[in-house]
Amino acid sequence: MSGTDHGAQADWSGPQPVMVLVAPQMGENIGFAARAMWNFGLERMRLVTPRDGWPNPAAVATASGASRVLDHVGVFESTADALGDLDYVFATTARSRDLTKPVMTPERAMAHTRALIGEGKRVGVMFGPERAGLENADIVQANAIVSVPVNPGFASLNLAQCVLLVAYEWRRQTGEDAPEVVEMAGTQFASQVEVQKLFEHFAQRLDDAGFFFPDHKADSMQMNLRNMLSRMPLTQMDVQTFHGMLRQFVRWKERGD
Amino acid sequence: MSGTDHGAQADWSGPQPVMVLVAPQMGENIGFAARAMWNFGLERMRLVTPRDGWPNPAAVATASGASRVLDHVGVFESTADALGDLDYVFATTARSRDLTKPVMTPERAMAHTRALIGEGKRVGVMFGPERAGLENADIVQANAIVSVPVNPGFASLNLAQCVLLVAYEWRRQTGEDAPEVVEMAGTQFASQVEVQKLFEHFAQRLDDAGFFFPDHKADSMQMNLRNMLSRMPLTQMDVQTFHGMLRQFVRWKERGD
Repeated sequence: MSGTDHGAQADWSGPQPVMVLVAPQMGENIGFAARAMWNFGLERMRLVTPRDGWPNPAAVATASGASRVLDHVGVFESTADALGDLDYVFATTARSRDLTKPVMTPERAMAHTRALIGEGKRVGVMFGPERAGLENADIVQANAIVSVPVNPGFASLNLAQCVLLVAYEWRRQTGEDAPEVVEMAGTQFASQVEVQKLFEHFAQRLDDAGFFFPDHKADSMQMNLRNMLSRMPLTQMDVQTFHGMLRQFVRWKERGD
Repeated sequence: MSGTDHGAQADWSGPQPVMVLVAPQMGENIGFAARAMWNFGLERMRLVTPRDGWPNPAAVATASGASRVLDHVGVFESTADALGDLDYVFATTARSRDLTKPVMTPERAMAHTRALIGEGKRVGVMFGPERAGLENADIVQANAIVSVPVNPGFASLNLAQCVLLVAYEWRRQTGEDAPEVVEMAGTQFASQVEVQKLFEHFAQRLDDAGFFFPDHKADSMQMNLRNMLSRMPLTQMDVQTFHGMLRQFVRWKERGD
């Protein structure tokens, strides 16, 4: 994926949630998480006691184009310190049997985040270390849990994938991406009159060729043809192509070979 | 993420879209794509001319728990062969300036897929090789384009991440995951009468302690306390904890030390 250009640049600035990586182990994964964030315009990362210290050259290497995320990373000595200035915190984890806590899908969590941020609140999302995930001592500091509804028989999201899905949902909840557009390659859709004229051209040539046979079926055959042309999303270029085909059949016929 | 148990098992079977990897290069990435699929219950993969042939031990190694996806993979000699029995095909790519084609978000594309599959149609989603992505010769065979609305200044989704987001959206469109639930750790929310009795216990003890002072503010102080207790999502366990605290203050007072 590269080069998409929809989505206003302005969407990528402004208030946004902070991604808090608690006790991440591999520097590489910190870099991958930074890339996942920046794909969807998130750029605020905090680290709690990264295993290999900070800065970490391995993180910089894997972050590559997303190094701006790492340039401004905050490093904290405890989860409480990292969350101290936030108003609302999510913990990403599987549902816990040990703690009574709201559990939201990423969709609901990021919709809630959008609402909170709209009220001027500061929101964070915690992610645990690669192997073990967040411990209960961290989760109890969160207001709610985010749990990705994965296959109960196979749940293997890694840290960067989990960050990616949260970042994607943030973008989905806040972006103004049209669900569907038609990319027009240097052309426009044909107007009604252009389609009608194409139909008339077809009808004339097909009549010349004896296509509308037998006579008592000619009307319904023409109706079906007219309907088919309206049903197709014809561009002006498509219409010209059909006109060209029809003219070429005439030339072919006149050539008589 | 592991161990989530919401989402009925039944959701993971039944008709689903086919993921078609066109000319994948690294076997490792085929395995990662399989994992991404199986996280969200997709298990039908097709390969078009995988660079290193098939089967590929590197794919098996990275797929690990998702090997069932690879066990049933179909291998084809051309894109046309791989798509031949499908009714509707998406191409995942950035928007193309060269081709007039509908462009959908993953969300819309999977909602459309759900509708098509509901009508008994067979749907596929094509993904291009890691570096170059799909070529126009492949894209023209698709009915529509899926484009992830990434940061226009940083679009770096890899193959498995792209598969992951499509699979996630499939799950989101077809699953019946409650947006928000409260995980109850061996307790229930307190009933109205339990909260009322807790309030009365508080009011009694605080009155004994001379908390409601001055007198003319006592009523509003009680109202605020009652309101606070209703505002909090108290469990039966929380209520017992508060009762225990209040009893302990009485003991502490009576101890007189």
